[in-house]
Amino acid sequence: MTTPEHMQQTVDRYLAAINAGDMEAVMDLYSDDASVEDPAGTEPRRGEEILQFYNNAFAGGAKVELTGPVRLSAKAAAFPFRAEITRTDGPTIIVEVIDVFEFDNAGKVARMTAYFGPANITVKEA
Amino acid sequence: MTTPEHMQQTVDRYLAAINAGDMEAVMDLYSDDASVEDPAGTEPRRGEEILQFYNNAFAGGAKVELTGPVRLSAKAAAFPFRAEITRTDGPTIIVEVIDVFEFDNAGKVARMTAYFGPANITVKEA
Repeated sequence: MTTPEHMQQTVDRYLAAINAGDMEAVMDLYSDDASVEDPAGTEPRRGEEILQFYNNAFAGGAKVELTGPVRLSAKAAAFPFRAEITRTDGPTIIVEVIDVFEFDNAGKVARMTAYFGPANITVKEA
Repeated sequence: MTTPEHMQQTVDRYLAAINAGDMEAVMDLYSDDASVEDPAGTEPRRGEEILQFYNNAFAGGAKVELTGPVRLSAKAAAFPFRAEITRTDGPTIIVEVIDVFEFDNAGKVARMTAYFGPANITVKEA
């Protein structure tokens, strides 16, 4: 269940689900007891907090795209991507992120960690 | 000690040290009790095992370069890079990797995890 093909597909589905604002598709990739640490170093979110987190992302109209190949280890995938977030009341910002997905034996994402910080955020030129 | 500037410099020094085959410069970045999990999912190396690991990399003439920005979180840096390894008795191979450095309070790398797998390895065209 954690073949490279499965993990690659999970990442592809995750990014497509975010771009579609499809909460059900996002949550289907996570295990029931998953944790989401975004950004790294903050308190991991669980359960309803994860729903709230993606609701906020969708409200910001987040659009994401890979900026390099998905790295596929034994039970983890790491991938670089760019997120473009446009709020109705502000400028469009670009965030360069690396996410790490750690998979459980059922092939679900049990732990997500997102690496980025202020140095990785820029305001898009109009 | 874990400012974004410090973490960025550590990554820059790390890649330069690998390209120079400079073991002392590499080891200076790690804490005494550091662990190196390369690739992710394998038993972490410590102490002398880390030296042996880099000795092997240097014997392979590893050359590395960033392929995107270093992501700088509160106490961690994640960065995508390409490694080119040429052994005298074989072809040159290219490996697309994402490393995560977790820093201790003294600004040393306490934990390194390298994400890649067979899907990220290609033989370079002659």
